[in-house]
Amino acid sequence: MTPDDLKALVRTVPDFPAAGIQFRDITTLISHGEGFAACVRHLAGFAREGGAEAIAGMEARGFIFGAAVAVELGIGFVPVRKPGKLPVEVIGIDYALEYGADRLEMDPGAVTPGQRVVLVDDLIATGGTACAAASLLRRAGAVVDRAAFVVDLPDLGGATRLGRLDVAVDVVMEFAGE
Amino acid sequence: MTPDDLKALVRTVPDFPAAGIQFRDITTLISHGEGFAACVRHLAGFAREGGAEAIAGMEARGFIFGAAVAVELGIGFVPVRKPGKLPVEVIGIDYALEYGADRLEMDPGAVTPGQRVVLVDDLIATGGTACAAASLLRRAGAVVDRAAFVVDLPDLGGATRLGRLDVAVDVVMEFAGE
Repeated sequence: MTPDDLKALVRTVPDFPAAGIQFRDITTLISHGEGFAACVRHLAGFAREGGAEAIAGMEARGFIFGAAVAVELGIGFVPVRKPGKLPVEVIGIDYALEYGADRLEMDPGAVTPGQRVVLVDDLIATGGTACAAASLLRRAGAVVDRAAFVVDLPDLGGATRLGRLDVAVDVVMEFAGE
Repeated sequence: MTPDDLKALVRTVPDFPAAGIQFRDITTLISHGEGFAACVRHLAGFAREGGAEAIAGMEARGFIFGAAVAVELGIGFVPVRKPGKLPVEVIGIDYALEYGADRLEMDPGAVTPGQRVVLVDDLIATGGTACAAASLLRRAGAVVDRAAFVVDLPDLGGATRLGRLDVAVDVVMEFAGE
C-alpha cells in the first residue's frame, strides 16, 4: 500500500476534542488488516535499522502500534504508562500540555542500562509526550535515538523538538498545512 | 518456551491493588522478546482456528496483546475503549465490578455485520469485563464465540461466565489455588 492509500484509511473528525481541531483518528486504519500491518512493517523497518533492542510505547494508542512492532522484531515491549497503573515502584516525569499538565510513569527495571530503545506512538503533534517519554527512558538507562510515528502533524513542530534531544524521527504519513 | 517458562516471566506483586490480592504483572513478560512473541503466537493460533476476521482488545493492556495478534494474523484490530476516548458516536455498555461499576465503549462502525471477532486480553479474573466486551461487540453485529487470554485465574470463574455466553476460552497459563 502507498502512503496515500494509508492516509485514506485515517478518519478526520472535525472539531474534536475542541473547536477548530481536526482530529486524525487511527481507529479506521487499524480495523483494516492490510493497512495496519503495512504501518507496523514501516515502523519496524526504521526501528530495525536503528538497532532496536526494545520498543517503548505510550499508553494507550501507542500500545497498539508499539507492541505489534516489538513482536514483528522479536524484541521486548516497554509500556510507558499513565499515572497509578503500575503495581511496582516507578519513575515518573511531569510535563506541560497546551492546557494543563500530564505525567508518564514506567518501571525502571523494564530496560537495562545501555539498552537501545525505539519509541513508537500513533501520532506526533507538538512532541511534548514523546520528549517526556524519551527523557524518562534515558533516566532509566536506555539509549533513545529514534522515534517512529504513524501520523505526523509537522506544522506543530514535534519532530524538531525531538531533534533537539538528538532523537531522529520517522513517520508513515503527514497531514500538513491544514 | 514451555508454559512454565512463560509463567516464570510473570511478576507477582503481593497486596496490589488491595491487601490479600496477588497481582499478576505482565510487564516483565512483555519486556522479554521471546516470551512476548510466544504468547502472541499462542493467542493467534486459537484465533486462527476459530476463523477470526478481526481481533478486539480491551483498553489498555488488552491493546498490547490484541494488536500484536491482529498483525500476526494480518487482520484488523478493534479497540474496546474506556469512556470518552473515541472521537465519534459510540455504543457503550455499563457493567458491575466487585466494588463499583465501569463502562466500555466502541465505534459501532469498527466491525461489519456477521464479522467473526475474537476477544484478546492479558488476564481473565471474574470475566466481567470480557463478558461486557462480548455483549457490546455482538450489539455492533459481530459474531463472538472465542476469547483468548494470557493469564487465567480460574478460581474466579471467568471462563465459566464466558461459557454461559457461548464464548469458548483459551489461555496461555493459569494461576490456580492460591
